[in-house]
Amino acid sequence: MFFTYEQPDFDINDPKEILRVLEEAYHNGCENCRAGKVADYIPELAKADPDDFGLCVRSMSGETASFGETEKRFSIQSISKVINLAAALKFLGFRETFSHVMMEPSGDAFNSILKLDMTSDLPFNPMINAGAIQVMSMLSNIMGFDELLEFARAFCMDEGIVLNEAVYRSEAETGDRNRAIVYLLQSKGVLQGDPAVTLDLYFKMCSLNVNAKTLANMGLMIANKGQNPFTGEHIIHPGYMRTIQSLMFTCGLYDESGEYGVRVGIPSKSGVGGGIAAAVSGRWGIGTYGPALNKKGNSCGGIAALEHLSHLLQLNVFD
Amino acid sequence: MFFTYEQPDFDINDPKEILRVLEEAYHNGCENCRAGKVADYIPELAKADPDDFGLCVRSMSGETASFGETEKRFSIQSISKVINLAAALKFLGFRETFSHVMMEPSGDAFNSILKLDMTSDLPFNPMINAGAIQVMSMLSNIMGFDELLEFARAFCMDEGIVLNEAVYRSEAETGDRNRAIVYLLQSKGVLQGDPAVTLDLYFKMCSLNVNAKTLANMGLMIANKGQNPFTGEHIIHPGYMRTIQSLMFTCGLYDESGEYGVRVGIPSKSGVGGGIAAAVSGRWGIGTYGPALNKKGNSCGGIAALEHLSHLLQLNVFD
Amino acid sequence: MFFTYEQPDFDINDPKEILRVLEEAYHNGCENCRAGKVADYIPELAKADPDDFGLCVRSMSGETASFGETEKRFSIQSISKVINLAAALKFLGFRETFSHVMMEPSGDAFNSILKLDMTSDLPFNPMINAGAIQVMSMLSNIMGFDELLEFARAFCMDEGIVLNEAVYRSEAETGDRNRAIVYLLQSKGVLQGDPAVTLDLYFKMCSLNVNAKTLANMGLMIANKGQNPFTGEHIIHPGYMRTIQSLMFTCGLYDESGEYGVRVGIPSKSGVGGGIAAAVSGRWGIGTYGPALNKKGNSCGGIAALEHLSHLLQLNVFD
Amino acid sequence: MFFTYEQPDFDINDPKEILRVLEEAYHNGCENCRAGKVADYIPELAKADPDDFGLCVRSMSGETASFGETEKRFSIQSISKVINLAAALKFLGFRETFSHVMMEPSGDAFNSILKLDMTSDLPFNPMINAGAIQVMSMLSNIMGFDELLEFARAFCMDEGIVLNEAVYRSEAETGDRNRAIVYLLQSKGVLQGDPAVTLDLYFKMCSLNVNAKTLANMGLMIANKGQNPFTGEHIIHPGYMRTIQSLMFTCGLYDESGEYGVRVGIPSKSGVGGGIAAAVSGRWGIGTYGPALNKKGNSCGGIAALEHLSHLLQLNVFD
Repeated sequence: MFFTYEQPDFDINDPKEILRVLEEAYHNGCENCRAGKVADYIPELAKADPDDFGLCVRSMSGETASFGETEKRFSIQSISKVINLAAALKFLGFRETFSHVMMEPSGDAFNSILKLDMTSDLPFNPMINAGAIQVMSMLSNIMGFDELLEFARAFCMDEGIVLNEAVYRSEAETGDRNRAIVYLLQSKGVLQGDPAVTLDLYFKMCSLNVNAKTLANMGLMIANKGQNPFTGEHIIHPGYMRTIQSLMFTCGLYDESGEYGVRVGIPSKSGVGGGIAAAVSGRWGIGTYGPALNKKGNSCGGIAALEHLSHLLQLNVFD
Repeated sequence: MFFTYEQPDFDINDPKEILRVLEEAYHNGCENCRAGKVADYIPELAKADPDDFGLCVRSMSGETASFGETEKRFSIQSISKVINLAAALKFLGFRETFSHVMMEPSGDAFNSILKLDMTSDLPFNPMINAGAIQVMSMLSNIMGFDELLEFARAFCMDEGIVLNEAVYRSEAETGDRNRAIVYLLQSKGVLQGDPAVTLDLYFKMCSLNVNAKTLANMGLMIANKGQNPFTGEHIIHPGYMRTIQSLMFTCGLYDESGEYGVRVGIPSKSGVGGGIAAAVSGRWGIGTYGPALNKKGNSCGGIAALEHLSHLLQLNVFD
Repeated sequence: MFFTYEQPDFDINDPKEILRVLEEAYHNGCENCRAGKVADYIPELAKADPDDFGLCVRSMSGETASFGETEKRFSIQSISKVINLAAALKFLGFRETFSHVMMEPSGDAFNSILKLDMTSDLPFNPMINAGAIQVMSMLSNIMGFDELLEFARAFCMDEGIVLNEAVYRSEAETGDRNRAIVYLLQSKGVLQGDPAVTLDLYFKMCSLNVNAKTLANMGLMIANKGQNPFTGEHIIHPGYMRTIQSLMFTCGLYDESGEYGVRVGIPSKSGVGGGIAAAVSGRWGIGTYGPALNKKGNSCGGIAALEHLSHLLQLNVFD
Repeated sequence: MFFTYEQPDFDINDPKEILRVLEEAYHNGCENCRAGKVADYIPELAKADPDDFGLCVRSMSGETASFGETEKRFSIQSISKVINLAAALKFLGFRETFSHVMMEPSGDAFNSILKLDMTSDLPFNPMINAGAIQVMSMLSNIMGFDELLEFARAFCMDEGIVLNEAVYRSEAETGDRNRAIVYLLQSKGVLQGDPAVTLDLYFKMCSLNVNAKTLANMGLMIANKGQNPFTGEHIIHPGYMRTIQSLMFTCGLYDESGEYGVRVGIPSKSGVGGGIAAAVSGRWGIGTYGPALNKKGNSCGGIAALEHLSHLLQLNVFD
């Protein structure tokens, strides 16, 4: 429907118009939830309500617009890969991090082992499971879960983030594919930490409880180049934000990243818990929650809402 | 070397500083040529001089900065994929075009058949051979080479573009992998035109003679949303530019696109003839020529110069 | 049903018992046709009658037992790969032949390109399309179709073999996947002949008209180590028969060869035209015709009849 | 050298000639060891002497011919896959066993994960790691290591088989790829037992200490259809021997099985410890030991000796 790319016939900077578009985007998101299905490969995720939808937008100056289920907590899942990467960049640096993981979109599903077994020894990028596990193996040598949780809270400007014990147990019990990945990395001699410790941290970070507002905060942190806009605190060096945003853009929505880049064009990261965090450079953080997923594992409602926002308010990085 | 991401200690809008940085970038490009090798899978390409390097930057207002070999003509090769995509969007529309080709980075080499045989019937994106051949099969039903050439000249604002007959013959004689691709697409029932006609057009478009200035012009056309900044003529609808830039960003440098996105972060397209065309949104078109290629098939000199420019002048889309 | 592996409670060398078992096998074949589907990827093949079934067994001494449709002609399809390999061994020798094609089962479908693109430059074996095309590229330099047809007639002891023009045209028109294969081989620099000439010969050899009796003859020729048992004429050197039978055993029924080896255990080759040729060393040639195919592309009736024969008469090479 | 396939000019049943050929085969084996390299991916294996070579041939009537290192013990490695399969057939039956593992050669390396991740959920065959681990997962529910060891001793007619503790520890410490495989099978929901218990049994069975004579015995057991020729005891049902021999023929030498079938043509199984066990139906068991391996992981000396024997004494199943 947006392929006509008409110029908006309203002032896209008028707060009233923006609010109207946000509401439309929210309703769009709600309607599109029906097209999806809640993830069920982890029992705990299957309990989510497919009709839930929430949209939260936060600006640098602290304005917050919330629609629908923005307070309900759910597990962060793959969106934690951004936090892990940010922690690796902050505590280990760019060179060390990318000595052990590549930066290329893989073209395969998020949990694929194919490329790893076939093409290369290093995982393709930090946004797929193999790459995120690899990043975690590096971090496992210098941090425990408490420090990671503390960093997550600072990076997402949300002290309310806690471990969802039920999801964590569910992950640990059913995470055999991730277990296969960690041992494959180990067998190739590239894993940087202990397999069991690495996996445990990886599962825990996937099991952090967040809500749409948390994700909007994460987006805002990235949009503000690693600085908390409210306290002024620098969480990570501004230079790393290019790297994070670029990898979110090319690899952030699994094997739908390319199409999402065309349709939405905002650096984002999705998780099978139903969340999407998006960063509108220098302006907004956006968080959505909609556990009904499409076939690629991305939130139907979230994509619909973000596509609407992007087109109507010209938020595409190439606009 | 750029991983420190220091803020520049000069005014990045001062024309004198810009000129200095451009010169540095040019020298950087020259030095890095030595790390690469001229393509030799097409005999005609092997004749290029690995030490050649040229950098051309053009602005909206018509300023041009040229360094080194910016007038020497060479074959456009894969950069023609951008022209083909632009033509498809203009003459067939977004929906029709993307009914027959996907938008996902493949994670494989530019000429890979793997994904096509394994995962899907449609080629992954218009920037790899399979996808560009598919795009050409659509165009072959509505245009001949003369119209395509005319469109290429308008899109690149260069009436001097002509077919390099020697390269074209060389392509046609040695293009067996592309021949394999066209017949594989045909066998899957997805090819939209006659295989021989499609291939002939594809080879011809790869054999267009351009120079670094032509590529700067192409970048400028994209940076100016499809409008010729000098004549005011609209070549293609501004809305399509998001799509073209997004696909250049995620897929424009073969299986080095992800890393290039992190290091340079400017939507670009490379060719094994040694060229790179880059679009700095709303500001500049950049063209480089350096036939010494790295292992992924991208110009060593071009990447080095563009990385320098991007960092020093903050041209990264996520800056 | 045969997994009990009971010893037969009758004299397996008693001609009357053998005849009874042959009849049972025939009926078994007829009944199992219903489980299959006639090939339809070549229009000409789709015209076959799925209920047709024929079984022909011939002994060294010239005895022939025929049941059902043993005279009806159909296209030989992949079974011609055995003739091509035999011709290559006879006219080019073992060393030359296996310098250009390997001897390994591929584990992939008969028309797969995957292994070729991924693992190796040489096709895996002469019983898959890529390998048979490669063999044909060698033969194309020393023989034309007339000589190949003459060899086929001698090898199958059937002067009635002629080209089925309709099937040949159908092959040539729809053989795009084979066209892709020949150009992929060419692009890798391993093809030994002209692509078009090679393909034309390959298509022609797939389009030879045979019947179940022809295939029984072919089996008999192999079972008799390359000597026509009726005229005494040596068609190919006895030593090559190990090679042919071994490759039929490991690769003769596409990606069902392993299971067929366990269930039947007689070196055989199948074709999507519905035929199977089997060689019971030093004793019998067996030919079956049943165009209803299973999912792997092998004749349902043929496999059922051969499994019955093998178990009841202990024809398994490992009995 | 054997491609001339000349008929032997001596009486291949004359015991003196046989002895001469056996000696030649032994010397051939010794000479060919130099072409190979001892396995080093398990530290314990790297300690083997690459010049060691032994050949042992045993007949039904108890004659034994031993040359070179036939008493030295080494770890059985992959040859235990035959014992595991035999145990599964005996204790679980054909149907149950092949409900959980296929019978197809994979065309990939013995430890490949590719096919498993890409094509199918069930492992391709019981002779590759994934398939043998799957078989062990079934056995783990009904037997412990003591019973498996007892079965191994009976099947190999060697009470001297014991666990090599050093190799077992080495396997367990470095077996990360097998760990990856077991968890991948588990994640696909096809593994039949506990991952850790399965792996432990698998590692233990790979670590059994055997010698060339043990392997000759194993070959003899198979050649005699599951009956101990000396005591008359039936170890497993004769009917299962077709299955075991057929799978040894199509899959027994990793991704060299097809070529080995052509060159040697005796159902055999190799291990990276340097052993090969071969079964000459109704006649002989042959065991070789030569830890210098070729690139496919098979014993250089063993293959050379067996090829010599097969050609000179016409032991090929298709002779």
